[in-house]
This record gives sequence, structure tokens and C-alpha cells, in this order.
Amino acid sequence: LNKAEGAVRRITPVILSGGSGKRLWPLSSHERPKQMLDLCGEQTMLQMTAARVSDNCRFEPPILVTAAAQGEAAEGQIRDLGIALPRVILEPSARNTAPAIALAALAAADDELLLVMPSDHLIGNDAAFLAAIEAAAPLAEAGWLITFGVRPSRVETGYGYIKRGDSIASGVFRVDRFVEKPDTSTATAYLEAGGYDWNAGIFLFRADTFLSELRRHAGDIEETARLAMEMAVREGALIHPNADHFRSSRSESVDRALMEHAGRVAVVPVDMDWSDVGSWQALYEVAEKDSRGNVASGSSVLIDTSNCLIRSEGPVVAAIGVHDLVVVATERAVLIVPRSESQRVPEVLAMLAARGEPQT
Amino acid sequence: LNKAEGAVRRITPVILSGGSGKRLWPLSSHERPKQMLDLCGEQTMLQMTAARVSDNCRFEPPILVTAAAQGEAAEGQIRDLGIALPRVILEPSARNTAPAIALAALAAADDELLLVMPSDHLIGNDAAFLAAIEAAAPLAEAGWLITFGVRPSRVETGYGYIKRGDSIASGVFRVDRFVEKPDTSTATAYLEAGGYDWNAGIFLFRADTFLSELRRHAGDIEETARLAMEMAVREGALIHPNADHFRSSRSESVDRALMEHAGRVAVVPVDMDWSDVGSWQALYEVAEKDSRGNVASGSSVLIDTSNCLIRSEGPVVAAIGVHDLVVVATERAVLIVPRSESQRVPEVLAMLAARGEPQT
Repeated sequence: LNKAEGAVRRITPVILSGGSGKRLWPLSSHERPKQMLDLCGEQTMLQMTAARVSDNCRFEPPILVTAAAQGEAAEGQIRDLGIALPRVILEPSARNTAPAIALAALAAADDELLLVMPSDHLIGNDAAFLAAIEAAAPLAEAGWLITFGVRPSRVETGYGYIKRGDSIASGVFRVDRFVEKPDTSTATAYLEAGGYDWNAGIFLFRADTFLSELRRHAGDIEETARLAMEMAVREGALIHPNADHFRSSRSESVDRALMEHAGRVAVVPVDMDWSDVGSWQALYEVAEKDSRGNVASGSSVLIDTSNCLIRSEGPVVAAIGVHDLVVVATERAVLIVPRSESQRVPEVLAMLAARGEPQT
Repeated sequence: LNKAEGAVRRITPVILSGGSGKRLWPLSSHERPKQMLDLCGEQTMLQMTAARVSDNCRFEPPILVTAAAQGEAAEGQIRDLGIALPRVILEPSARNTAPAIALAALAAADDELLLVMPSDHLIGNDAAFLAAIEAAAPLAEAGWLITFGVRPSRVETGYGYIKRGDSIASGVFRVDRFVEKPDTSTATAYLEAGGYDWNAGIFLFRADTFLSELRRHAGDIEETARLAMEMAVREGALIHPNADHFRSSRSESVDRALMEHAGRVAVVPVDMDWSDVGSWQALYEVAEKDSRGNVASGSSVLIDTSNCLIRSEGPVVAAIGVHDLVVVATERAVLIVPRSESQRVPEVLAMLAARGEPQT
């Protein structure tokens, strides 16, 4: 009995696989968002996310929360790794992270320790990530809501920031405050001042801690999620929350619904070669380049071409004398944009939508 | 009888439609060379070529000489204009212009006046072209071989040049000599000196003049063409020259086989807004631009994009923040090249061939 009490409690990964697939158009789509593409090697980011926390000495099999439209494919990708998936929650519609995590917490036992992770981020240094989890686990057990912060490496206006407060354990800080995406001068000041980390959207907490705090700060979200799960249809591992209840939920991020308001919230800063792969440029940065600085995949002919990201899902892409470009081709769409402007890709989708044309 | 003698003899256009389709890849191909594409408006260049000389007061119905693989489509494009095609010669293989023209001359009556034209050039000023033909016709009737020269508008190393000699009639000059494609300094000197015209590959002569001069200067070519036509298979308008004989012919241009050697050769310089559309850049130059200097056709989304040629045969092409580029997309291939380097397109085909990959 003493031995059982002394045993380290295993952590349950909660993998969030949603995403609208706009930023890596024309490859990504709602049915095939970026975490399900083999963008960075042999595994998809969804697979890398699952594999990262698959040591069954330390982790339970994961809970997968995914859009119904992506469910079968997402589940298949994880099972292909030989990872069991006893709980797959199919969201009837997209309601952002607070309701999605609530579904997972309601599917878990009260005292289950949940590690919530987006599935569309890259982590280069798994060991650092796992070490940060170990540092945070005792506090999560004790009822803290833990966030993981990424030390900023550049002025970045695309992420939220977390300001560290007092140290409460080795490598763990009370959160002073959450900051929405800042403008350039604010982001520059954060980088110079130090003590600010990017909010990577990774969390560790007990299921009951999360649900009680959610009830307190966003009771409506907790209520709709609970009703959706009470009336859920289960078939094997698949959990279909009740669509009517879930759709009536407010759409809200877990940061806004809960983290910004709760009392015992801590941040663990971690250097783990993190990237959200939020643009073709971000993918270029993390990818392996050839001697000309090109990242090429699929059929291509490159002549006097350098520092380009060239990707084809079918057509042969022939580039002559071009530099610093992103070229992505499918049989239905072709994107050409300088790497430095690749964050503008959603403008294409907006324009197609305005014209009433399909996004292919 | 006097009236009949005084009547102007009608001219028979000979339209040469061959071409390997390398320079406007990936749109052009051997089966669909550039003259059969609607690159510059509603008509193809083949159709424009036929329409240009379709005034039946002045012209007989044309003789079409075309590669067998392109025959049906080429014939169809011309007939679609309501132009009769009583003689369609299907080349069993490509042997350059001297053998091709020999086939046409052998299909014609001895005293027929033949206007030989490539089908893959643009002429903006048809009236100037037709006036030049009128100026040349009496000399062609009298046994001269007439070439039409294009006044150089820039230093150009991609064409052969014709040096004018003495004037022999209004607007008509004896040819001093033909010059192969010059280097840049030579081309510059020609442009400065004046008296040199681009060789546009357009000719006017009597069928018997051509054949007797060909017999004299390239008897082997005349011989194989004659045997091929003697053993030709005819079905309606279609003439299939004997393949064995024709294939045994030397491959040679009419300039080298004949024009450079014959005695009575004249040139008629003409300003007719001519372009051989020999590259995507050349097509861009003659095409109508929008307010941003773009030439776009097919499905596209252009954002902060200027001075580009964007062409799609299917996929939606999305360009953001690019300038002075050529982008051509089909479902099977995509080309990206700066306009200023678009003459390098055949390098792509060479590389695909070296790899043993299809040219799509």
C-alpha cells in the first residue's frame, strides 16, 4: 500500500486536434488540417504529439478530442503508431478550447492528471518538455493549473504572452498575468525586459481542479459540456457528445474562460525548440534545407533557385531563377508568395470566399 | 481573254504548322504546340494566320502542312473559321522547313504563287503585311524568291538577319546576304548600322521557281519530297506523303537549303508588329495588361502582385506580393520564372529528359 501510494501517478495526455487549416493553404483544409499532414518528415504533427507522450511508464493512453469530420483519419494516424486510444471524443462542432477541454475532463476520472496539448505544434526537444512536466506534476496534483511557456526567441506579435510572477518551485512561477497578442513595440519591450513567455497552449491539471474552476469562472461552458457528455452516445472508444447541447455552448478559449481568472495558475518556462508552424515561413525555418537553402518536396525541377520552400502534391513544379519564395502546388491550387509574406495566406481564402469560389 | 490575263493571280497561302512546343512549356506540347493555343485572345495563332489571308478575292484556300500528330486538331481549328482546306499535307515526321515547303510546292500547280507562312507568329498590322505581299507579288511572278523582313526594334540574338542589297522595286531589295543568329555585339552593330532585317520565315514564290532552285541547291531534298508525294496516299483533302521516303530526307531549313544560295532572292522589309512569341516574356509584351501590369488568365487570386504573367489551365493560382514573374499552371505542371529569364524554359525540359521523367 505504501508502495502504491509512493508510485508516481501516470498522466493522461489530452490531444486537441481541431483547426481550420487556413494558414498552410492550399495543403491544409478543414478535413485535413496541418497536424494531419506530413509536413516535417515521416510523421504528422498529430503523430509526433502522441508519440512524445507515449511512454507507458509515465503516461496513460491519450484522450483524443477532434472535430467529427477529422475523427476517423486522426484516430487512424495515432493507432498506426501502435498507440491505444480508449477515449476519442468527436466534437459535434468547433467551440474553441475551453469547451473541448471540458469534454475531456468530463470523460476523465476526477483525480486524473490531464496534460492538454495542441496537436499542430512542433517540439524539437522532447526531453526538455518531459522534464518540465515532471517539474510541474506535483503542483498540478496539489490543485494548481499549470501552463507551459516558451521563452521568446524573437519579436513576435502572433502569440499571447504570460508574465512570470514569483517562483513557487524549481522552474515554476506563479502567473502574474496573461497578455493578449501585443503590438510590435510591446513585443519588443517584453523581449528586452525578460520574464515574459509565449503561451504555447499546453496545460497540466487535475480533471476536478479544471472543472471546478471552470464552473466558477465560466459556468455556462461547464454546464453545456456536462449536458453534452451526460447525453453522449458511446460506441466502443468513440464518444459522440450530444450535438444540440454542445452547439449551444459559447465559443471561448481556455485562456479567456479560465486561466486569466483562476487563482492558482502557474507557468513553467521551457526551452524546447517549439514552433506552432503557423505559416509556410515557420515551416521553412524548422525544415532541413539543401545546399542551396531550398526545402523541396514532391516532384520539382529547380534551376538557379535558392532559399525557397517548394512543395508539390502532384504537379511537377519547375522554378528557374527564383529566390526566397514559397511555392505550393496541388492539382487544384497553386500558391506563390515570398517567404517573408507567407503569413498573408489567409487573405487568399478571404478573397475566394468573397467571390463565392471554393477554397479547393 | 485580255481581261483574264489582266486579272491579278490569286495567291495560295501555305501554312506551316509544326513545332515542338518547348518554349511555352508547360502549356505547349508536341501535340498542342503554341500556334494551337488561345494565347492572345479568342483565336489561336494558327487561326489568326489563316484568317489573315482569307480574302478570297486575293487568296486561294490555303495548303496546310502539319505534323501528323497535330493534323486533325489543326485542320479543325481552320475549318472552324469557315475556311475551306482542300489540301492538308500530313508530314510523317519533322524534317524542318525545306522538305515541308517542298511537299506543298509539289502539291501545287507549277504556276501557283505560294505564300509560305509559319503559323506560330503574331502580326499586329495585317494591312502592312498584305501591302508588302502586293509589292512583292509581281517579282515573285517573274521568278524571284521573296522573303519578308521585320525591321529590328531591339538588339536580338535569337533570330537570323537579312542584309538588304540594292533596291529592285519600290520597297523591295535584292538580298545581300543571310546572317545566322548573331552575338550581342554583332546584333547591336546591325541595329545601329540599319539595313538589316529579322528573317521572319515568310516567303513568296512560284511553286516551279522554288522547286527548280531546290533541285539545283539541295537536290536530295527535292528528290525525297518528290518520291514521297508520288507515293502519297490521298483521302479527301488529306495527303499522306510516303513515310519511308520522307523520313529519309535530310532535315534542313529553307534558308540554309536554298535561300542563302539562290540567285534571285529579294527581301521586303515590313513594319507589321511582328512577334514570334518565342517565350513567355514575348507573350507578355504583346498581351493586354491590367492596371497593375498583370496579364492574367484562368482562375487566379492576385494580391499586391504586379507586372506578372499568370496563366492557369485549371488550378486556382494565388499570388501574393510577387512581381515580374511568369507563373503558368496546369493540373500536371507549374512553371515559375522571372519574366526576364523566361527564355530558359527549355532547360526544364532538358532536365526532365535527363532524369527520364515525362514532360507532362
